[in-house]
Amino acid sequence: MPEIEEAAVVAADCGQPDKEVRVGIVGYGTVGRATAEILAHNGEEIRRRTGGACIRVTRACRNTLRNSGSGLDGVVLVSDWRKVVLADDVDIVVEAIGGTDVAYDVVRASIENGKAVVTANKALIAQYGEELFGLADQKRVPIGIEATVGGGVPIIRAISEALAADRIQAVYGIVNGTANFILTQMESHGMQFAEALKQAQEAGYAEADPSLDIDGLDARDKISILARLAFNASLAPAQIPVTGIRKIAATDFHYARRLNSTIRLVAAAERNGGGISVSVGPWLVEHDSMLAKVDGPNNAIFLAGEKVGTQMLYGRGAGGGATGTAVLSDVVQIARHLARGQSVPNGLPGFHKPEKLPLAERVRPVSWYLRLTVRDHPGILARVAEAIAREGINIDSVIQEPHMPKERLSFVITLEPVAECVASRAVQVINKFDFMLEPVLLLPITSSAGER
Amino acid sequence: MPEIEEAAVVAADCGQPDKEVRVGIVGYGTVGRATAEILAHNGEEIRRRTGGACIRVTRACRNTLRNSGSGLDGVVLVSDWRKVVLADDVDIVVEAIGGTDVAYDVVRASIENGKAVVTANKALIAQYGEELFGLADQKRVPIGIEATVGGGVPIIRAISEALAADRIQAVYGIVNGTANFILTQMESHGMQFAEALKQAQEAGYAEADPSLDIDGLDARDKISILARLAFNASLAPAQIPVTGIRKIAATDFHYARRLNSTIRLVAAAERNGGGISVSVGPWLVEHDSMLAKVDGPNNAIFLAGEKVGTQMLYGRGAGGGATGTAVLSDVVQIARHLARGQSVPNGLPGFHKPEKLPLAERVRPVSWYLRLTVRDHPGILARVAEAIAREGINIDSVIQEPHMPKERLSFVITLEPVAECVASRAVQVINKFDFMLEPVLLLPITSSAGER
Repeated sequence: MPEIEEAAVVAADCGQPDKEVRVGIVGYGTVGRATAEILAHNGEEIRRRTGGACIRVTRACRNTLRNSGSGLDGVVLVSDWRKVVLADDVDIVVEAIGGTDVAYDVVRASIENGKAVVTANKALIAQYGEELFGLADQKRVPIGIEATVGGGVPIIRAISEALAADRIQAVYGIVNGTANFILTQMESHGMQFAEALKQAQEAGYAEADPSLDIDGLDARDKISILARLAFNASLAPAQIPVTGIRKIAATDFHYARRLNSTIRLVAAAERNGGGISVSVGPWLVEHDSMLAKVDGPNNAIFLAGEKVGTQMLYGRGAGGGATGTAVLSDVVQIARHLARGQSVPNGLPGFHKPEKLPLAERVRPVSWYLRLTVRDHPGILARVAEAIAREGINIDSVIQEPHMPKERLSFVITLEPVAECVASRAVQVINKFDFMLEPVLLLPITSSAGER
Repeated sequence: MPEIEEAAVVAADCGQPDKEVRVGIVGYGTVGRATAEILAHNGEEIRRRTGGACIRVTRACRNTLRNSGSGLDGVVLVSDWRKVVLADDVDIVVEAIGGTDVAYDVVRASIENGKAVVTANKALIAQYGEELFGLADQKRVPIGIEATVGGGVPIIRAISEALAADRIQAVYGIVNGTANFILTQMESHGMQFAEALKQAQEAGYAEADPSLDIDGLDARDKISILARLAFNASLAPAQIPVTGIRKIAATDFHYARRLNSTIRLVAAAERNGGGISVSVGPWLVEHDSMLAKVDGPNNAIFLAGEKVGTQMLYGRGAGGGATGTAVLSDVVQIARHLARGQSVPNGLPGFHKPEKLPLAERVRPVSWYLRLTVRDHPGILARVAEAIAREGINIDSVIQEPHMPKERLSFVITLEPVAECVASRAVQVINKFDFMLEPVLLLPITSSAGER
């Protein structure tokens, strides 16, 4: 890749150079550019909120092959990230590349060079968070991660600062806007999954390879970060069971509506005896619930604290404006300290000094939705009902639409509350029946009592 | 009042006395006690989040005549607040008295003695915020006010930290749990206002003198704080037009339901040309909106930022657990700094260095709900419709239930969007008609487009 010639620095300085905090941005795509633009656009407001410190982007690293837009006045554009990370005129490095390869090198090198880091990279923090925060502790530099979860929704601050004195019982919600967009398209327009995915791609919400979003891997990274912060627990994303939304069909929304509900991809973590349980998967949620109201690419995250009760934070989960604002919330907080010659206290013990808490399956009984797809013949319901009864489970309702083709008929059974392992045992038995055309779709149902 | 004998300090210290931060609580009622209890109960968790600093309540001041419960181990109980504010073993004073008389003296004296202050007192901050923050600036001590608005909902942090880099366009929502409890009781049970108020008093949500809550004065104090933080604007609560909920009748919920809506007391502040408009009053909100989902004593606050989009924060707006958690979020943040020998950066320019922004009436056109109560005779609707037409306003709908008594009949007219001053002019004319038994109830209607 050819090295770009460095542009002259033309922007005026702040007039108070001793109070200037200089930002270098690595990765000048949607988030990186938005960060620089907001900073340029709202400079005066931001300066007021930093107590007079001036924050300025001095350097930005971009891949010329992918981005052809021009830079901002006074920003030195480079194509080698080392020219940001090693530069004398950079105090805070904003890592906005994504992925876990180059981004890992950038963040490590920044910390090793004594620079504060702000990142929107959930995959990096989910996978290497403990290592990077450990290194940052040694080097006494802060890492800001507000933008890793929930876009502009200040969920990291809510856990680590607002609820710092409370004992958090659960954190759960909708953390992937792309999956939520697809599900709400299916809900509103009766679409099949493939068609809704295509629309999400056309609208720019889903990547050409949409797997991270629709298979729940992005949500898994995010809930792993939230769970570590909420419970101060060591947790690797790979330990978290995950179910995506590929198996959700238009017919499920049809049946959900009959149950006065809809379907949402929910990431959840809760205390569970002496351990924690964490999962990602689609849930049936009542139309009346706040989760059901979250449509399009929005996020909504619930926090249940022992003393504070249940809170909910809602807003745009992605996009340059929302994510850039979150990145800058960390930049401003760090700048407030740097401008005063102070180090930045860290408030994320879940990454600095995590405990080992055992991971357990969720034991709290919930109701269940089972959608079966069968080749119809007499006696099917009797056999299914018997398999369910053998586990001691009560059936709450059976719904079957009339006039369905016998060669491929789907119907739904809902179960009264039982633990997940009990419902799964019944499902394993049912899946072996010869009339089953595909495995049962098993979804937990949120309780009518509230959002949990 | 007799002086209480000081109890012996019995609690063990932290083992790291150089990292101990000592809290004195003035006002040992619901919030003060909850603050002390949460601190005692979650000490280990809190210590982890402060980076090892130990926070301990050393002194508490209570009025013996009103509180007879015993104190916590190791807390010196006094009845003279000066014994907290002047004590050498207090670093942070938590003011939990309420009101603007003694509380003002306590906070001033604390700051003058170089102590950090954390307060839940919205009336005090609404009225004396600029003066107290000015003094705190001089003395280089922080004031924490997270608990003044929204109970445990971290709205102060959301504005001042999470959206520090954005330009906030509007902040609005439900900030008084008592009024919301009353309205949701009327909505759910078809109650009249007086009966719902009595229930709120029996449930402990409303005071014997409920005026602060139901006349919107508490909400006015809160929105004055939020508006100052959001817009960096100087603003006295008395400048804000306020309408309470006393005039809302059971019949309004009946008509609201016909309009697929309900009624909520909404405090709102928004940019308006070069100035801001701020108001408190009941609104008609669509059943589908998130505001309508906020029931009982909960709060929900929306923040609309230019870049970040619209966010919503929801949770318990009052009670010892929620408010105590908010108080402690500030205590923990201050303690993190004190334990490191650092001063605390302030991030609330709306109180430190406010701008003068002109206050203006809301000019954005909205739809309107008019409920008229009349002695019926032929020709009433024609005269009312003519008065509305003369202002150039289109009527959207007229709803009148059948079989109402002619001597006291109520009906509802909804108007297409017009500015408030235009709707008010029509209402002034209508109010003069001889058949009117009481003034028109005029409520703005939230737009179907969303939450604004």
